[in-house]
Amino acid sequence: MNLYKHIVQYYETDKMGITHHSNYIRWMEEARVDFLKQIGWDYAKLEKEGVICPVVGLDCSYKESTTFSDVIEIDVTVKEFKGVKLKLSYTMKNEEGKLVFEGNTEHCFLSEKGNLIRLNRSYPEFYDALVAMIQKKLS
Amino acid sequence: MNLYKHIVQYYETDKMGITHHSNYIRWMEEARVDFLKQIGWDYAKLEKEGVICPVVGLDCSYKESTTFSDVIEIDVTVKEFKGVKLKLSYTMKNEEGKLVFEGNTEHCFLSEKGNLIRLNRSYPEFYDALVAMIQKKLS
Amino acid sequence: MNLYKHIVQYYETDKMGITHHSNYIRWMEEARVDFLKQIGWDYAKLEKEGVICPVVGLDCSYKESTTFSDVIEIDVTVKEFKGVKLKLSYTMKNEEGKLVFEGNTEHCFLSEKGNLIRLNRSYPEFYDALVAMIQKKLS
Amino acid sequence: MNLYKHIVQYYETDKMGITHHSNYIRWMEEARVDFLKQIGWDYAKLEKEGVICPVVGLDCSYKESTTFSDVIEIDVTVKEFKGVKLKLSYTMKNEEGKLVFEGNTEHCFLSEKGNLIRLNRSYPEFYDALVAMIQKKLS
Repeated sequence: MNLYKHIVQYYETDKMGITHHSNYIRWMEEARVDFLKQIGWDYAKLEKEGVICPVVGLDCSYKESTTFSDVIEIDVTVKEFKGVKLKLSYTMKNEEGKLVFEGNTEHCFLSEKGNLIRLNRSYPEFYDALVAMIQKKLS
Repeated sequence: MNLYKHIVQYYETDKMGITHHSNYIRWMEEARVDFLKQIGWDYAKLEKEGVICPVVGLDCSYKESTTFSDVIEIDVTVKEFKGVKLKLSYTMKNEEGKLVFEGNTEHCFLSEKGNLIRLNRSYPEFYDALVAMIQKKLS
Repeated sequence: MNLYKHIVQYYETDKMGITHHSNYIRWMEEARVDFLKQIGWDYAKLEKEGVICPVVGLDCSYKESTTFSDVIEIDVTVKEFKGVKLKLSYTMKNEEGKLVFEGNTEHCFLSEKGNLIRLNRSYPEFYDALVAMIQKKLS
Repeated sequence: MNLYKHIVQYYETDKMGITHHSNYIRWMEEARVDFLKQIGWDYAKLEKEGVICPVVGLDCSYKESTTFSDVIEIDVTVKEFKGVKLKLSYTMKNEEGKLVFEGNTEHCFLSEKGNLIRLNRSYPEFYDALVAMIQKKLS
């Protein structure tokens, strides 16, 4: 697994001279998509198969400000997954290795029609891949 | 017709302390959607009927900077429309009435399948409404 | 006090056909800025005086999806404020009055140099205005 | 020189299922910043020295739609520069090498106080680096 890297863009800063806080929410998505690809489940392909994975909730804590041209390293881990609600955690560090952001997102899996998908039944291999990532973290 | 007003949001500024230039492109869209609604052609409804109206080109000139909490007044006019390419023009002014932005967008009308729609045939009333707005401007 | 209204823009939707979740974070900011103005503390003016009010943390829950052209009504309340950490709560409803989003943000007040400002000492009137909004809610 | 690559993010798509047109404006900025870095003039450093380089105008043409997870290759060239107005051109291609976007931006160089900087006088080496890129293109 490679940590996802995001370079802060000029358009992501605000008049305080730092990254606007809303962009970290988008970077969690960038890192999540990259994470899914790395464990073999490309989100673009999943959507083509009719599986969507909306965010149903999130929380985060801003530790240090970042700004234009900073390189942010983002670590994603599966916090909890019992088949319905997927809980992911994120930590972001700057180039000095300093923690700048911590966050969590909660997701469910839906069919295009909006019906809840139980991953362990419909996509057991995807389910296993996600659960394996919990165990990895715990070991 | 009422001019569309946009209040500059904090998240639209950048570290120069002013509105990031990419946001004006979005405000042209906001004003365009409002304009279509005012002439009786709600874009949300058009899309539900299967008509999409992508931007195929644009150009613009930034005259004065704006910043957080500024109220921007946006004027939209139909520049040219002969049935296929719709050309719209935009001017934006700040609260002092100073010109801050001038721009133009070009659009076509497509069906959901991506086929070109000739508005004068498929939506003659919409076509007439748009053409009427040219005449209005010229008079 | 008037509830803040946000009309969902086309550029705020994503390929799921609904509003991208990151935009609600920005709408909380829009509503917060409007709220501060309504209680007499224009954030643009505060910044000019050298007071910044960054977001230090947030959490939220997405209840129902929204989409292009929806009118969202946003209610802001002061949840807690003892002088250092300002906690605000937000509820967003669609035109049918259905709850679509609940969120909370935490803020501190800083000088331009980054020093913590104790509002009750430096801006007692602003402090009182915020505290009064808690009491209002409780009554 | 390496071409800049941008992976289309989910939050950059809209309800048409494709990349929202405003994002290409931001990608031109991303590619421009990368280009300046590659020719030895890191924009973050320039700003620290008090030089800003706002966009004063732009135009573009959308050739093909792109969508989530597409990898876009962006080519930047110096079109014209005689010391005051810098004109840059951009072409974007998808993974199949198909042209998806063509654009141009115009810039000036300003001091923090907003005074026009003549690069050939104040930053002759930067001026030469930019002019050299025109010649490179012509050869």
